[in-house]
Amino acid sequence: MGINSVGIDNDERFERGWEKLREIDGEAGERVIESLKDIAPDLGRYTIEFPFGDVYSRPGLDLRSREIATVAALTALGNAAPQLKVHIHGALNVGCTSQEIVEVIIQMAVYAGFPAALNGATAAREVFAERGLIEA
Amino acid sequence: MGINSVGIDNDERFERGWEKLREIDGEAGERVIESLKDIAPDLGRYTIEFPFGDVYSRPGLDLRSREIATVAALTALGNAAPQLKVHIHGALNVGCTSQEIVEVIIQMAVYAGFPAALNGATAAREVFAERGLIEA
Amino acid sequence: MGINSVGIDNDERFERGWEKLREIDGEAGERVIESLKDIAPDLGRYTIEFPFGDVYSRPGLDLRSREIATVAALTALGNAAPQLKVHIHGALNVGCTSQEIVEVIIQMAVYAGFPAALNGATAAREVFAERGLIEA
Amino acid sequence: MGINSVGIDNDERFERGWEKLREIDGEAGERVIESLKDIAPDLGRYTIEFPFGDVYSRPGLDLRSREIATVAALTALGNAAPQLKVHIHGALNVGCTSQEIVEVIIQMAVYAGFPAALNGATAAREVFAERGLIEA
Amino acid sequence: MGINSVGIDNDERFERGWEKLREIDGEAGERVIESLKDIAPDLGRYTIEFPFGDVYSRPGLDLRSREIATVAALTALGNAAPQLKVHIHGALNVGCTSQEIVEVIIQMAVYAGFPAALNGATAAREVFAERGLIEA
Amino acid sequence: MGINSVGIDNDERFERGWEKLREIDGEAGERVIESLKDIAPDLGRYTIEFPFGDVYSRPGLDLRSREIATVAALTALGNAAPQLKVHIHGALNVGCTSQEIVEVIIQMAVYAGFPAALNGATAAREVFAERGLIEA
Repeated sequence: MGINSVGIDNDERFERGWEKLREIDGEAGERVIESLKDIAPDLGRYTIEFPFGDVYSRPGLDLRSREIATVAALTALGNAAPQLKVHIHGALNVGCTSQEIVEVIIQMAVYAGFPAALNGATAAREVFAERGLIEA
Repeated sequence: MGINSVGIDNDERFERGWEKLREIDGEAGERVIESLKDIAPDLGRYTIEFPFGDVYSRPGLDLRSREIATVAALTALGNAAPQLKVHIHGALNVGCTSQEIVEVIIQMAVYAGFPAALNGATAAREVFAERGLIEA
Repeated sequence: MGINSVGIDNDERFERGWEKLREIDGEAGERVIESLKDIAPDLGRYTIEFPFGDVYSRPGLDLRSREIATVAALTALGNAAPQLKVHIHGALNVGCTSQEIVEVIIQMAVYAGFPAALNGATAAREVFAERGLIEA
Repeated sequence: MGINSVGIDNDERFERGWEKLREIDGEAGERVIESLKDIAPDLGRYTIEFPFGDVYSRPGLDLRSREIATVAALTALGNAAPQLKVHIHGALNVGCTSQEIVEVIIQMAVYAGFPAALNGATAAREVFAERGLIEA
Repeated sequence: MGINSVGIDNDERFERGWEKLREIDGEAGERVIESLKDIAPDLGRYTIEFPFGDVYSRPGLDLRSREIATVAALTALGNAAPQLKVHIHGALNVGCTSQEIVEVIIQMAVYAGFPAALNGATAAREVFAERGLIEA
Repeated sequence: MGINSVGIDNDERFERGWEKLREIDGEAGERVIESLKDIAPDLGRYTIEFPFGDVYSRPGLDLRSREIATVAALTALGNAAPQLKVHIHGALNVGCTSQEIVEVIIQMAVYAGFPAALNGATAAREVFAERGLIEA
């Protein structure tokens, strides 16, 4: 890309992040990075490096708990449906059951209101249908 | 209180909620209910019945995961510092380590920005100091 | 459904909520509950019980004022377009005029900014057109 | 003030807004404008002109309903405690009862979550105590 | 329109706002006002008068900086995609480069999280493609 | 600190970030990092590395424009008063005038509502008073 022009060798951090992103978000995550290529490739690079190369690679909290935290936050914020769907995939990919994901979404009715939970359930239905867990 | 005048017997649901609230939030939770007595006692009653009597009492997700979800959501929303502090207590009460809580808060920098994470860390510091986990 | 496994008899609360939901939101409300059947039926149940069985059934504030409050809040939050549309229907169903609804939405420009009000107006246009109040 | 330098005569709009602000918000509203004098007097001027001279002066919705809408929105947004307190005063000033205000705040638990409602109740308690409606 | 019935002559303010809206937002801005005609024409009038007739017409900050502020705010809020697109057009119209706009959007990852920045990049891609700055 | 245990040499990125943080935020920024030492030192490290070492160090947008974007976003979000104050200092440190900062804050009334702008003005008054630009 040649954009991060300051010249630091972040290769190891980038590689670790790329592997972690693929482990968690799978193809859905790769498509996010791909979609940034023509508009903001550095944002794609940062998305790999900081969230995945730094944060998700940290010890101290298992990936299943990390995805529960992310699904909770994105459901509560309610303004990031595409990312919520990616991380519902992610939660399933790292071992959360569909029931656990639904429990997190229901719980968000308490903290962010019923509309946030209802829209979270809509996102979950779309992801579960894509994966054949429920009928489309 | 005599407010829920429609006459349904919700006693079992209330009792279950009250026990769950005490298990999770301890004295901090009791103080929330107490503080509502002169202004909106029914809101106190609903806080016991729906979040604790219904949601936290559900099977399908362990309490530790539920508190991780709540700390994540309240850190991300960034506009509910008193409740975030109550649930950092709650997370510790149900078995999360202080390190795990800090990991959740750091992770929120990714989904809600650094200010949300920094203010979450401030809330955690206050709770950890109250409990003698760090120096006040 | 068999999900609320703890065994409390909430039937009266559920029935009251179901009637209130139908009174306020009509078919649009029923469709929300229906849509949850395959993904989170308990969230549908809670949506009937707490918002409608508990809150909207309370004395102390008329339904017209309650719908004004809800349209105001959902317009201001700006991240729950489907629920805003349901409650614009609801406001009309309980006696608000289309002019009153538009006044509430305009007022939100003051408290949540012009984009929130403009997107609220878009939701109102869709609902008014569905009901033949303006040309589609 | 001489700030609105473009030269339009907005005096009538300003006067109407000032009277409306005093009618609704009383001294609490005047203090807001006063507090802006040394930092952003034009923002004070706009606050009088647009919200009060334009919006609250509109026919089509009574002031009591307008204050219900504002208390609902500010409780739901949850990030504007000083303004929420001013408008709880305002709601009381234009004829809402303290019970009606509490009903609006409880209802926001449904749309913005329990923390928003709990923090709204805290704001109401402070205002009601200032006015001697409950014990301080 | 005949709605602003109080009778103040705001013509000069309206004219100035209309010219400013056309200068900044171009046809995209005109379409917003047009779209309000059948539902809330006064909201269209206020959109011209206050944001454009008052705020954007103020001396003290150049239009390029004003559009940077608006693109930043709308990207961070994350719940106003149509308005963000209008103002990405606006930023280009008043002299911002596409690179500068992308820089603002990337920066919002810091203050509102990566999902806000990613969705901002999606909006920018759509606008840049409409204008032939990148391939559709 | 020894926490970023994966072993990548990020020293150059950290150093560049630290210099940039000191250039922009000055002592207020250093205090933020210091305050994290006992609770989440890695969050301090990330705050230096990603926002300052990566984003603010990028070419393509001048620091004055970057601080305008940040003041706009934090005023609009309305839930991060401490960080808003740090960046009002930052805006002044990189060459924005107090008038320009006030213009950005007034403009946020349009996009996030008057309460957000009023609370932004409160933050600005505190910072300007600390620096002797207005009377305390």
